Amino acid sequence: MVEPDFPASEFEQRLESAQREMRAQDLQALLFTTEPEVRYFSGFRTQFWQSPTRPWFLVVPARGKPVAVIPAIGADLMGRTWLDDIRVFTSPHERDDGISVLTGVLDGYARIGMPMGRETSLRMPLADFDRLRASLPGSEFTDATGLIQGLRMVKSGAEIGVISDICAIASNAFQKANDLFYAGQALTEAFRAFKIELLAQGADDVPYLVGGAGSGGYSDVISPPTDQCLQAGDILMLDTGANLTGYFCDFDRNFAIGHASDEVRTAYRTLIAATDAAADRARPGATCAALFQTMALCVGGGSDVGRYGHGLGMQLTEAPSIISFDQTVLQEGMVLTLEPSIALSNGKMLVHEENIVIRDGPPDFLTRRASPDLPVLDRARTGV
Amino acid sequence: MVEPDFPASEFEQRLESAQREMRAQDLQALLFTTEPEVRYFSGFRTQFWQSPTRPWFLVVPARGKPVAVIPAIGADLMGRTWLDDIRVFTSPHERDDGISVLTGVLDGYARIGMPMGRETSLRMPLADFDRLRASLPGSEFTDATGLIQGLRMVKSGAEIGVISDICAIASNAFQKANDLFYAGQALTEAFRAFKIELLAQGADDVPYLVGGAGSGGYSDVISPPTDQCLQAGDILMLDTGANLTGYFCDFDRNFAIGHASDEVRTAYRTLIAATDAAADRARPGATCAALFQTMALCVGGGSDVGRYGHGLGMQLTEAPSIISFDQTVLQEGMVLTLEPSIALSNGKMLVHEENIVIRDGPPDFLTRRASPDLPVLDRARTGV
Repeated sequence: MVEPDFPASEFEQRLESAQREMRAQDLQALLFTTEPEVRYFSGFRTQFWQSPTRPWFLVVPARGKPVAVIPAIGADLMGRTWLDDIRVFTSPHERDDGISVLTGVLDGYARIGMPMGRETSLRMPLADFDRLRASLPGSEFTDATGLIQGLRMVKSGAEIGVISDICAIASNAFQKANDLFYAGQALTEAFRAFKIELLAQGADDVPYLVGGAGSGGYSDVISPPTDQCLQAGDILMLDTGANLTGYFCDFDRNFAIGHASDEVRTAYRTLIAATDAAADRARPGATCAALFQTMALCVGGGSDVGRYGHGLGMQLTEAPSIISFDQTVLQEGMVLTLEPSIALSNGKMLVHEENIVIRDGPPDFLTRRASPDLPVLDRARTGV
Repeated sequence: MVEPDFPASEFEQRLESAQREMRAQDLQALLFTTEPEVRYFSGFRTQFWQSPTRPWFLVVPARGKPVAVIPAIGADLMGRTWLDDIRVFTSPHERDDGISVLTGVLDGYARIGMPMGRETSLRMPLADFDRLRASLPGSEFTDATGLIQGLRMVKSGAEIGVISDICAIASNAFQKANDLFYAGQALTEAFRAFKIELLAQGADDVPYLVGGAGSGGYSDVISPPTDQCLQAGDILMLDTGANLTGYFCDFDRNFAIGHASDEVRTAYRTLIAATDAAADRARPGATCAALFQTMALCVGGGSDVGRYGHGLGMQLTEAPSIISFDQTVLQEGMVLTLEPSIALSNGKMLVHEENIVIRDGPPDFLTRRASPDLPVLDRARTGV
C-alpha cells in the first residue's frame, strides 16, 4: 500500500496558503497540467509522467479541496492521496481526452489562474487547450505563475527534511570519489559508477547527472559523458540532481585528476570564496540580485551559464533565480543553490555549487561543503 | 569531445522526409519546443531538459537545414551537432527569453506547423507563445502532430539498433531476477537492486521503473515502490523504461514469489498467448486496431490501462496506440510494445509486455521473450 509522502496537514497548509492568495487576486480556480504542481497539491507521485500519452489535470478551487481530473489508469494511486474528489476519464480516447470532464469541473469560474510565465509549460495538447477555452466562454484564463512559484519557493520543514536527506546521500557518494574515479577511466564509466554509488547510498533515482572533464577545466556543463578517458591534469566535474521521495539535490564537485595548475587551483578557491560571501549575505530580507552581485564581484565576470544559482525542490531548478534582475526577497525556508562559475584563461571554466536553506540567521548548508582546496584524485599514483 | 549519436546522413534522411511532407501539406516551417523533436532533427541530447528554466526552440524550414534557437548555455553542445545555424539568446532574461530571436527566424513563413494534438505539449511559457503569435500576424500556426508522429513512428536501422541494445540490457537484468528478488525483501530494495543491475548491465539511465506486488496480483501499475516486504504468494511485476543513448526499452516481467495460484498461472499463460497472437498478426498492412482486437479476444475484456501497447523509441511511449480506434497501418520499422492486461477474480490484474519491430514478415522480438509459464522465484527455499 502506497502511503502519502507527507501527512494531510502538509497539503492542507499548501492549500490554505494558495487559497489566501487566490482570494487576494480574485481567482476562483487554479488549473494545473504539470507534474510538480499536481503533486504539490495532491501528493500524487509516479514516474508514469514519463509517458506523454495522457494528460492529467488538477483544479484548485478558491474554497474546498482540489479536484483531480485524471485518466482511469491513475485512479488507484490518486485514491490513496488526501483528495476526495477524483474525476476519471478514459484515456487514450478517440475524441475527448478529459476535456469534457474538465470543462464540467471548471464551469462557472470567472477567473482561472494557470502557470503561463517564466519556467512554465503546458502539459496538454494545445488544440485541447484551445477547445477548453472555447467551451468556457464565461471564464478568463489568466497567469498565476507568481502565485504558484511564490508558494513553492518557500519550503516546509518536511520538504527541507527530504532535500536535506538527498543532499546527504549525494555528499556521501561524492566522498567516495577517490575510489570511484581514476586516470584511464572512460567518462561513461565514471558516470555509471557514480550513479550506482548514489543508488547504493540511498537515492531513489538519478534523473540528472551531467559533467565535464578536460585538461585544465571544461567548456561545457550540460553534456552527456563520452568514452574519452580521464587523464592526469584533467579537471573532472560532476553535477547531480539525485532524487529522494520526489525531491532533488542539485550540486556539483570538482576534482583534479593527479594534478592541477596554479591557475585552476586559484580559480577553485575563488569559487569557494564566492560561495562563502554569498552565504554570508543569504539572510531573510536580502534579494537574489544582491547574492548575484556578491558572487559576481568575487569571480569578476561570469560565463554563459547566465546565473549563479536558483531554487530547487520538486524540480532540479525552480524559482527564484540568483541573477541580476531577480528582486525576489529571501525568506526563511527557501532552499537555494549557490552556483558561481568562473572563466579561465584557456577559454574553459569552472563551476562550483552548494545547496543551502535560508534561516533566521546564517543559512544551513544542506550539502557537506566541498573542501576549500581543489581535491586531487590520485588512486593510480598511490596504489589505493 | 561529444560525438553525435548518429551520422549526419541519419539526420539528413529525417529532414528530407519531413520536408517532403511539409511541401505536401503546404507548411513553410515546423516549430518544436520539446526534447524529443529537437533531438530528432538536431541530435542535441542532454539531461539538462530536467531544468524547466530555459526554453529551447528548433525551426525546420521547408528547404535548408534546421535552425536552433537556444540559450547560450547550450551553444557548445549544439555546436557539435550537424546543424550550421545556431542562434543563441541570453537566458534567463528579464523580458525576452528568446522570443525576439525566434520571431526573426520565423518571420515570413505563412504556415507554421507545431505539435498540437494527442500526446503533445508546449514546452515554453503560454504567455510567450501568445506573444510569439501576436508578433507574427502574417503567420498561421497549425497542427502538425500527424506529420511528426508519422515520421517518428517508423524507426531507422540505426534507431532499431539502439532500442535492440537497451532491450537486451534489460533482458539480461531480468535474467538475474532469482538473485535480485526474494521473500522478505522490501519493495524499495527490490527496485533499487534492479536499477543498479540495469546500470551494471550497461543502461545509461533508468528514468522509468514502476511495478506492483501483491498476493495473487496487483491493483496498480504506475506506483512507486513501498517499504512493504515481498511475501510468498505475491506476484511481483517490474516494468522498466531503461535508456541507452537516448532511446528506451519498455517492457515488464512478472514473477511469483514462492508460489502462485492456478488462476494466476492460467492468466499469465493467457497473456503470453495474447502476445503470440498479436505478434502473428503484426505485419505491414495490419492496423493497430486489429492488433488490439486480437489481444482483446484472448484476454476477454481489459483493465483500466486502456490500450494493449504503443510505439516506443526516444520516449517511453509514442504513437501509435494499440487501441480500438487507432487505424494506423503497420509499416516495416515500427517499434511497438505488445502489452495485454487481464483482470483477475480478486479485482487485481496482470500485465505482460514485450517489444517488437515490424518486419517484412514476422516481427522481431527485441526483448528476450518471457518464459511461457509464470516464473517462480524461490531463492530462500532453495538456499541459492
